[in-house]
Amino acid sequence: MARFVFPTPLMSPSFSPGSGDIAPEVLAAQARPALPCPGGELDALLQSLAERMQPLLGTARPVYFLGSSASGLMEAAVRNLVEGTLLVSVGGPAGERWARVAAGCGRTVERLEVDWGETLSAEKLAAALQAQPYPAVALTHHETATGTLNPVAEWAEAVRQASPDTLILVDAASSLGGLPVEMDAWGADFVLGVSQHALNVPPGLGIFSVSARALERAAQVAGRGWYFDLLTLERQRLRDQTQDCPPLGLLYALDVQLDRMQAEGLTLRWARHAALGQRLREWAESRGMPLLAPAAAQSPLVSCLQNRLGLDVAALNRYLQPRGLRVGQGVGMLRDRTIRVAHGGELQLHDLEALLNAFDSFLTQ
Amino acid sequence: MARFVFPTPLMSPSFSPGSGDIAPEVLAAQARPALPCPGGELDALLQSLAERMQPLLGTARPVYFLGSSASGLMEAAVRNLVEGTLLVSVGGPAGERWARVAAGCGRTVERLEVDWGETLSAEKLAAALQAQPYPAVALTHHETATGTLNPVAEWAEAVRQASPDTLILVDAASSLGGLPVEMDAWGADFVLGVSQHALNVPPGLGIFSVSARALERAAQVAGRGWYFDLLTLERQRLRDQTQDCPPLGLLYALDVQLDRMQAEGLTLRWARHAALGQRLREWAESRGMPLLAPAAAQSPLVSCLQNRLGLDVAALNRYLQPRGLRVGQGVGMLRDRTIRVAHGGELQLHDLEALLNAFDSFLTQ
Repeated sequence: MARFVFPTPLMSPSFSPGSGDIAPEVLAAQARPALPCPGGELDALLQSLAERMQPLLGTARPVYFLGSSASGLMEAAVRNLVEGTLLVSVGGPAGERWARVAAGCGRTVERLEVDWGETLSAEKLAAALQAQPYPAVALTHHETATGTLNPVAEWAEAVRQASPDTLILVDAASSLGGLPVEMDAWGADFVLGVSQHALNVPPGLGIFSVSARALERAAQVAGRGWYFDLLTLERQRLRDQTQDCPPLGLLYALDVQLDRMQAEGLTLRWARHAALGQRLREWAESRGMPLLAPAAAQSPLVSCLQNRLGLDVAALNRYLQPRGLRVGQGVGMLRDRTIRVAHGGELQLHDLEALLNAFDSFLTQ
Repeated sequence: MARFVFPTPLMSPSFSPGSGDIAPEVLAAQARPALPCPGGELDALLQSLAERMQPLLGTARPVYFLGSSASGLMEAAVRNLVEGTLLVSVGGPAGERWARVAAGCGRTVERLEVDWGETLSAEKLAAALQAQPYPAVALTHHETATGTLNPVAEWAEAVRQASPDTLILVDAASSLGGLPVEMDAWGADFVLGVSQHALNVPPGLGIFSVSARALERAAQVAGRGWYFDLLTLERQRLRDQTQDCPPLGLLYALDVQLDRMQAEGLTLRWARHAALGQRLREWAESRGMPLLAPAAAQSPLVSCLQNRLGLDVAALNRYLQPRGLRVGQGVGMLRDRTIRVAHGGELQLHDLEALLNAFDSFLTQ
């Protein structure tokens, strides 16, 4: 086969969820010469990054880094913390992924389902746990396919009330960095994120934290393996000794991106995302494309517009592309029924206004 | 904690095994803007890289890429291909890792051990398999801690003769790219490598191939999980659809490094490694530091010198460091008994001569 030829210029990923813009200096940071691996400098870097990530995960617990996707970290949670049946809340593809990963690991899965975009009520979650004391429940903080921000604080409170011994596992893959994640305040036992969504770092780095009681639970579970074994990772951390060589370039990129996020101010960054979301929602409603998610659960990072005008999203993107713009197609069963617009990360209000102007021109052409 | 401060200038990793020099243009390639993920361009890049890696793995089978260390790919092999007991050849840390990963996955492990640096005889391997038809045997191509290149072709032939149904799993983590790996000629069922050793690409990318009969075997094994599930990976490949977002920067870096390796010529590159090894061996023997590995199994990539002069390797490195040079400490039980010198990757004869001159000055100071 011929050598792959990179597209020139690269398609702009703006407003297309899941492939956020990455700042040039963050991309460039990957090219730093490699630190010796394993080695003392690497451990100092990991330690520094872990402490800088604690406020973003909302935890005082240690933070771990691993070359992995979100699904891989779900596998880590399941293999270490779930013997028997996992209760899974499913309202979109992320919830589906929890269920599929757990089944792949040979666990029984009990699903609590709502229509894609909707949110499960805390009462239904509590009722399921009162009926049966599941060892763990898997929740999704943010569904990027539906633009739904789930009430994890409420859910976790309901779980703790109904079944205090049930471990609370939270996928924050698409929210971490883009809005508050509150592991300790939630009382969550495992919270996972990745580099490439709202952290706006290139893909490939998994980031997670785990509670003390979950580590104790893991010690009772056999067949945890090696790569995703929480006790091996914790042992390496305590010894300041990573045995495996992590994706160094992504650690360097995260280091620079955390500088950028701190320079802007986390709260201001999150407020910017929310303001863009507000502007987009008002525009979309006025054009007859209300959001899929109910008002109380609309995401500050990505909006999923109901495609009530029957627009051809591929044609829309062909119109937007020469203008350096692009929106997201719907996902799965929502493919033709929705249009997705990301408004987190590095995007500014003037970027969004440019998109809305172009979108309006497309509508009136 | 304070922000991590990168050492300036970075320590030169030359001649220190496990952290090979990386060409500036390979490092820089990581900073290319991200391709949309998932997407058609990404699949075309993966397909191109897979075909370009086939000659390096010595296979006509598909090649897979995954954000993972070598241990992670061992876990993939074990979870998918081993039910019951794994027979493991152990002659150094890589063999030990096979055993530890398999045990972590809940498999029984039967060890065939030799002293570190030595190589197991094909006869002993055959005898073990005649006594019991293990479902799989785990071999190590190259032990970077001992500088031993194992006779995998001979071993695999012995396995196939003694027990044709036994799957042959080969760790080529530290040899892939630096010397011929011959998956198809060996008749191996799973061969794994990583980016950061003899491919001289930054760390974090796992690369492997798997035989058709091994994929059939995997279909019978329960609890394969998700991240390392061979059938999920194969399904995604056939659909041209990666569901997870791979470490893109490392794919870009590998693409550029394969250009560089092809420009030099693979055979010439390997001959260069061997010539440097020959020069080093002669020097080391003349200085009273013969190699640990027996003559027939000495690695063209890294030499493990017996520290018969009782040198303090830390003091040696303190002497070498201002000259931009560095050698490797012994590993594990060989820590004080050996000195390791890498001579693969980007190193040229004049680099080695500079090291030997400095080493001689240290010896006579």
